[in-house]
This record gives sequence, structure tokens and C-alpha cells, in this order.
Amino acid sequence: MPRVSQDHLDARRRQILDGARSCFARFGYEGATVRRLEEATGLSRGAIFHHFRDKESLFLALAEDDAHRMADIVAEQGLVQVMRELLVDRPDGLDPEHEHPADWLGTRLEVSRRLRTDPEFRARWAERSQQLTTATRQRLHRQRESGNLRDDVPVEILSSFLELVLEGLVSHLAMGLPADDLEPVLDLVEETVRRHRRTAP
Amino acid sequence: MPRVSQDHLDARRRQILDGARSCFARFGYEGATVRRLEEATGLSRGAIFHHFRDKESLFLALAEDDAHRMADIVAEQGLVQVMRELLVDRPDGLDPEHEHPADWLGTRLEVSRRLRTDPEFRARWAERSQQLTTATRQRLHRQRESGNLRDDVPVEILSSFLELVLEGLVSHLAMGLPADDLEPVLDLVEETVRRHRRTAP
Repeated sequence: MPRVSQDHLDARRRQILDGARSCFARFGYEGATVRRLEEATGLSRGAIFHHFRDKESLFLALAEDDAHRMADIVAEQGLVQVMRELLVDRPDGLDPEHEHPADWLGTRLEVSRRLRTDPEFRARWAERSQQLTTATRQRLHRQRESGNLRDDVPVEILSSFLELVLEGLVSHLAMGLPADDLEPVLDLVEETVRRHRRTAP
Repeated sequence: MPRVSQDHLDARRRQILDGARSCFARFGYEGATVRRLEEATGLSRGAIFHHFRDKESLFLALAEDDAHRMADIVAEQGLVQVMRELLVDRPDGLDPEHEHPADWLGTRLEVSRRLRTDPEFRARWAERSQQLTTATRQRLHRQRESGNLRDDVPVEILSSFLELVLEGLVSHLAMGLPADDLEPVLDLVEETVRRHRRTAP
């Protein structure tokens, strides 16, 4: 396949994913009809489903894309930073300007919901979700090597701890509970995995 | 009202709540039909709805009852103990003997689900959920007075931290993810709020 054609395919795929992301975030999986996906991407259903077999495949590609982005942030800045970004981008029910919840959180919530209710989706998602765990563990191993991580608890436990807090945060935001007091909680979470310097002032 | 009659009413109410709890845990809120509630409680619909206005009120009474029990455990043993009991009682999809998920987790999951999807329920639940937060904070204040709690982080932050982890645990179990590695994670959570003795062997 000539190079220019591959670039074109990649760009078109990106266009579909970006449009679909805001569409899923706004209307949820069920509410993201083919017509709405056409509007959001600016492409015909023929063009969309030339690139993705069906809506399910499109959603999985999107969730996988987000998992890549999360894994990148984890690799660079750690899982707590992913959580901090969820806090900043959280939907604000009181502010009419914020009609769209953070696209990222939207996809993540939809993944959580479908994991609960759809065993087939759970199986398809399992292999993809391993990515974030792997990125988190690699990051923690590097942090340990540089002496930034506490060394009295195995990396696997610290990684599970961080993922559990992330899940709690997603759930908390999904329930529309107040998140104003969570910044210092995330500071505490971060401090818990770091090498300890609590005696400093 | 004569004393014997009040005792009778209390016992009948308890009978309904116990039957309804396992019914909701087994079939979910929507699936717990009036017929199934009759079977589970051994009482007629007339008797059930003499004590509770409707299914919604029955469910709220149940969730409130569980919140009381959780608050009692929190007062005596702390929120981490509540989490440990969720781990022990967790539903085991691989074991055909365990048809019923832990009744407690069942109610809690149903509360989480309805909080996400039902704004009216969210309003009715808000006042009741405060109870667990209050019990957790009171417990932490007592622990601080006895010198068992770290004193460099406000009790409110520690309480929010514990509740966030609880929410993550409920979500984790709801998604059917493996929970075998979570005991040491809860040890870490407990250690995080305790007065620090990490230098000890």
C-alpha cells in the first residue's frame, strides 16, 4: 500500500475516533446512534463502518485509544497524575457551559458500566485493560530504581492500590458526588507510595 | 400503643427487611418483583406494603438498615474492617454453591447503580449516606485521641480517603475483577491512616 494512502487512512481513522469520543461522552453508548455518529464525525455511515466493523468495535478502539493515552501519562507522570486530570476535567452539573463531561471520563465511565452489565464486553476488554496495569508497574519499578518509591511494599501491591483508588475516583465522579475535597486526598495517595519523608516539616 | 403490639410490628418489619435483602441481592432492584418479595419474606403483598409504602421505600429502608450496620462496624472496628468483610463475602462466580452474592454488597451495588442513573434517588439517599461519613469521622477522632492515628493529616481528608477506597473496592467487585491480591492493599490503606511506625522491623 502506498505511503500517502496509509496516511490518509490514519487521518480518517483519527477523525472518526475524535468525533465518536465526544458523541459517546455526550450521549452514552446506547444514545450514540449512527445518525449522531455521522453528525459528530462529519462522515457518512458508509465511511465510518468502512474503518470500524460496528459500533462495538468503534467503542473498543476508542477505549483502547484512551488506555494508550492514560498509559503514556502513567509512564511519564504516574497514575496519580491521571487521577488529578480526572478531577480537573470533571463534569460540573452547576455550570451550564459544561454540557459535555470530560471525554476521557465519559469513555471510562461507559467502560465501567459495560463491564458490570455485559459479560461479552468484559472478555473483549480484559486483554486491553492489562495495558494500564503494565504501564503503572513499569513506572513504579523505575521510580523504585531512582529511589523515589517506598521499598517496604511490593510494586504489585502499590500498583493495585493506585488502581483501586482510581476506580473509586471514577465511581465517585460518576455518582455526581462533590469532588472539591479530593485534591489533598490524592496528595495522601501519592505520599503513600513515595519513599517516606514524613518527619520533614 | 401497647408494648406487645410494637414488638410484633418490629419483628414483622425485620422479617420483611431480611427477606427483601436476599431478594434484592439475588434479582436486583428491577428483578425483585412483588411475587418474589412475597416468596422471600413469606408474607403477602398486603402485609409487606402495610409496613412499607412501596418497593422504593422498602429498598431505602434496607439500604438505611445496612448503612446503620456499616456505621456500627465502623464505630467499633473502622472502615477498613468494613472493606475486609466485603472481600471475605464477595460473590464467587466460579463456585456454583454461591448463587447469592453477599447480601450487603448486593444492596451497596444497587445503591451505587441507582445513584448513577436516578437523580430522584440521589436526593433521597443523600441524607442517609451522611451517616457513614459521620461514623467514620467520629471513629477517626477517637483513634486520634488514643494516639493510634497519624496527626499530620486532617481527619476529614483521612475519612475521604477511606471512603474513596471503599467505593473503588465496591466498583472493583461489581466488575467481577479478581480480588485475590487485595488483602495486602487493605493493609497498606490501614497503615496509611495509622500513626507511623514504618521504621520498625
